[in-house]
Amino acid sequence: MGRWEPGARDRLVVAAVDLFTEQGYDATTVAQIAERAGVTKSTFFRHFPDKREVLVAGQETLSRLLAEGIADAPGAAGPLEAVAAGLVRASTALGPMSREIAPRLKAAIAASAELQERDALKSIGLAAAMTAALIDRGVPDPVAALAGELGVLAFKRGYAEWSEGDRDATDGLAGYILAALEELRVASAALR
Amino acid sequence: MGRWEPGARDRLVVAAVDLFTEQGYDATTVAQIAERAGVTKSTFFRHFPDKREVLVAGQETLSRLLAEGIADAPGAAGPLEAVAAGLVRASTALGPMSREIAPRLKAAIAASAELQERDALKSIGLAAAMTAALIDRGVPDPVAALAGELGVLAFKRGYAEWSEGDRDATDGLAGYILAALEELRVASAALR
Repeated sequence: MGRWEPGARDRLVVAAVDLFTEQGYDATTVAQIAERAGVTKSTFFRHFPDKREVLVAGQETLSRLLAEGIADAPGAAGPLEAVAAGLVRASTALGPMSREIAPRLKAAIAASAELQERDALKSIGLAAAMTAALIDRGVPDPVAALAGELGVLAFKRGYAEWSEGDRDATDGLAGYILAALEELRVASAALR
Repeated sequence: MGRWEPGARDRLVVAAVDLFTEQGYDATTVAQIAERAGVTKSTFFRHFPDKREVLVAGQETLSRLLAEGIADAPGAAGPLEAVAAGLVRASTALGPMSREIAPRLKAAIAASAELQERDALKSIGLAAAMTAALIDRGVPDPVAALAGELGVLAFKRGYAEWSEGDRDATDGLAGYILAALEELRVASAALR
């Protein structure tokens, strides 16, 4: 157990990631995940429809926070500034537990084609959420689509750096993501 | 039957897309696909490992052509110019049959979460192929990753326009993709 006080949902995520790492995704059952987490199978199914969805727990929350952050950005903010606001808002959903399990989560995904597919769909869902929120702000389509993709790239790159960093440290995810977004903004000037 | 002369592989793709559209992806079996295509089940399995892979037939070919086109671009070409060369090369793999089945393929994917996931992984694979080919050319990482994402966005947007256009026309996919890439390049200047 780490420094947080996990509820049933968090315990289920940690148990699933541990079991996927120890014995593989295919060999792990919902019953085993529930037992490891110290809850019943019906508690599992109150939180997740199946074992695969445990791995993308929080996708709806992330999408909602991204969209809200973009909607709440000042009217004068440009597309990437609005994306930055969305990313900062979404970062609040990923705390020390997310950082602690990140390396095992990464290994579990790398070992399973099924999880890679689900993870890929998550990325596309996050890009779509940002693009739609930008279009609602009046950003024209090609710019909105591009800014949404940059947002996902920044999220993934920042998350990777954060989760590989010192997990005892208290530096938040948002700073890593904003640095990655700035790097991509600079890179976009080097395209031709 | 359309205006092309399909071999067994093409017939399997058309049969699968038709059956997925008519009766749904989940209800369709490999045996039904093979029967509709007029081949045996073992012929099916010589071409595809399972029914899902029929939908992303050609992903390896596309990845290879993208990488080759990028590698063969003139040394002085910038990242997006190299991506354009890769996209033109890859477009040669998608002819009239691809255009003919595109609307049914789109409907089949929209109706199945499983196919959406596989399709999402295909997008990520194509972006990774372009990014790796750019890095091999000496393009620095953040620029290469960004150019690879723009390449996939251009591919998807150009493919969508092409497949919604007049399917009796002989205008090729490449022109649509290059127009989409140019639109995204212009859009990247509007980010801030």
